[in-house]
Amino acid sequence: MARIAVIPGDGVGAEVMAPTLRILQALDVSEGLGLVFDTFDFGAERYLETGVGLPPGQLETFRREYDAILLGAIGDARVPDGAHAREILLGLRFGLDLYINFRPCRLYAESLSPLKGQREGQIDFVVFRENTEGPYTGIGGSQKPGTGDEVAVSTELSTRKGVERIIRAAFAWARKKGKRSVVLGDKSNAIPAHQLWLRVFREVAAGYPELEARHLYVDNLALQLVQRPETFEVIVTTNLFGDILTDLGAALVGGLGLSASANLNPDSTPLFEPVHGSAPDLVGQGRVNPMAMFLTAGLMLEELGHAQPAARLENAVLRAIRAGQVTRDLGGTLSTTGVMEAVLRHLEAPA
Amino acid sequence: MARIAVIPGDGVGAEVMAPTLRILQALDVSEGLGLVFDTFDFGAERYLETGVGLPPGQLETFRREYDAILLGAIGDARVPDGAHAREILLGLRFGLDLYINFRPCRLYAESLSPLKGQREGQIDFVVFRENTEGPYTGIGGSQKPGTGDEVAVSTELSTRKGVERIIRAAFAWARKKGKRSVVLGDKSNAIPAHQLWLRVFREVAAGYPELEARHLYVDNLALQLVQRPETFEVIVTTNLFGDILTDLGAALVGGLGLSASANLNPDSTPLFEPVHGSAPDLVGQGRVNPMAMFLTAGLMLEELGHAQPAARLENAVLRAIRAGQVTRDLGGTLSTTGVMEAVLRHLEAPA
Ligand SMILES: CC(C)[C@H](C(=O)O)[C@@H](O)C(=O)O
Ligand SMILES: CC(C)[C@H](C(=O)O)[C@@H](O)C(=O)O
Repeated sequence: MARIAVIPGDGVGAEVMAPTLRILQALDVSEGLGLVFDTFDFGAERYLETGVGLPPGQLETFRREYDAILLGAIGDARVPDGAHAREILLGLRFGLDLYINFRPCRLYAESLSPLKGQREGQIDFVVFRENTEGPYTGIGGSQKPGTGDEVAVSTELSTRKGVERIIRAAFAWARKKGKRSVVLGDKSNAIPAHQLWLRVFREVAAGYPELEARHLYVDNLALQLVQRPETFEVIVTTNLFGDILTDLGAALVGGLGLSASANLNPDSTPLFEPVHGSAPDLVGQGRVNPMAMFLTAGLMLEELGHAQPAARLENAVLRAIRAGQVTRDLGGTLSTTGVMEAVLRHLEAPA
Repeated sequence: MARIAVIPGDGVGAEVMAPTLRILQALDVSEGLGLVFDTFDFGAERYLETGVGLPPGQLETFRREYDAILLGAIGDARVPDGAHAREILLGLRFGLDLYINFRPCRLYAESLSPLKGQREGQIDFVVFRENTEGPYTGIGGSQKPGTGDEVAVSTELSTRKGVERIIRAAFAWARKKGKRSVVLGDKSNAIPAHQLWLRVFREVAAGYPELEARHLYVDNLALQLVQRPETFEVIVTTNLFGDILTDLGAALVGGLGLSASANLNPDSTPLFEPVHGSAPDLVGQGRVNPMAMFLTAGLMLEELGHAQPAARLENAVLRAIRAGQVTRDLGGTLSTTGVMEAVLRHLEAPA
């Protein structure tokens, strides 16, 4: 049995979560996964009412009683400066010490890429984004805010422990999956603190002689991701650079409607969320693309030890894409529900 | 008369500088620009010999006696951690207080873009990259380096003055050039210090009611640059994000072989450099693409008040590109000298 905490969240969160739960339940029935879902109403509404994003003790409850957290989206223009998103989203990532933000980037169909000459499957890399340090720790602030003398600072933190564990995770995964290379993206030529990344990368790489370890400055990495995305397999990078590079990666393979992510720590309760946000402009129209959430659920199944059902789900999404059973962002005409029904049909069809 | 300090620098620096000076001299003769060139040998060689990147007093000399600095490239693997690049390149940017890093991104020919369906001229935006603050100030360092307890920090600095002047520069330029929009890229949803950027952006924008002022989180901006680059005209952003976004922009229009940049402050001596680095793998082969340096020289001419010759130069480069008179990186077969000769011929041909 696996107990899953479901947080639909804000905006389109509920609209992508509902069909995802339908699909998970269908898989549960046919594969006997024993999934149990509890829903939590964390998000802007509750934050605006109570002033609290994550109630006290919640992290402990998640750690002790749940095997996974599945989250739709957090973000609402009524909350100034995204305060509740930081409290909930970063609160979960940091509070549960989920140091691996695992974000795959795969081209499911040639037509989905804005790039010339990229064929299906040719773009296929994973970003290991550090997820508990960087400028996301919130160290910093403003002196004399609102005046002409204002000085605002933000401190990017990298610890040996933090850098080493994400780099080790990337190399270990690359070995397990039989990949050929791991690329580090940093900015050590301008930011001396990033030399820690480069040093640890070289140290860890020495234990993986079968893997090519390449180092690129992040600006050059962004450029090469556009010019030759097919040369990347595993990228490991800082929290901030990972944020930018994974949106860039999403753009190369069809956009945020297809981008899944997993926040992991083998010793904690993992959090699964699509890379997209709450998309307020799409709310209530029934046409948001639920596929990123489906693929995110697939990552969850894999992490829960259900590799076979996870592959079945990804394959069903792939078939729906090939059949043009997609929402408007991918050039189709289907509604959110229509996409769900198509994926359900492909799930049931023989392989 | 205009006195220009020429720094060929490292790697391919000299190889792109020599043909650029030939072209500037040809323009000088035909247009009577009165350009005077003095060459400086700053770079890795001198740094390795003397331990000094920029000699004491050099900034003052540049400020007092020169109208512009033209730089090829700085970077050499023999200098650990790019120390001399920081001392020279960042030394000039910071020491001369060149707060505007102006980087245009224009698609000169459809075939140059890796993107589907982008036609000549359709991608045409400029990035105003803040150039004197950010994590580039060097605030930070490592505690217990090399140990398991190492903690490395880097502080990103934003001052009201620094943020305001780059944002004002972007809006003023957009108005002068009759553009329709200015986009801010920051990460204020995760980095509270970036709220200074957003506040100042909104304040300055209020003085430009004819311009659409759009705000995007940098991850989303990177994504949209790939998905719909034609919707951007003027982007203003932080030092670090500008570094990444301009390499990304370069990738969209043909790569670093065509990317020019100007480091500006109306009250100081400006510095002009291509976005590319010293490209050690290309040194001595006579086939590096000099066009980024040519276009950079064009930006210099414009800044020196020679808009007409600057346009003539850009146009000659454009014609060479259209005629396929390009180096290998752009799909051609010409040498560096061959490209120079082609551009010289187009310069002389009637428009
Ligand atoms: C060499 C490096 C310090 C520099 C920068 O980061 O500014 C370069 O990437 C650039 O964009 O000019
Ligand atoms: C909402 C924001 C704080 C978040 C981040 O920067 O991590 C998002 O962009 C993401 O990538 O998950």
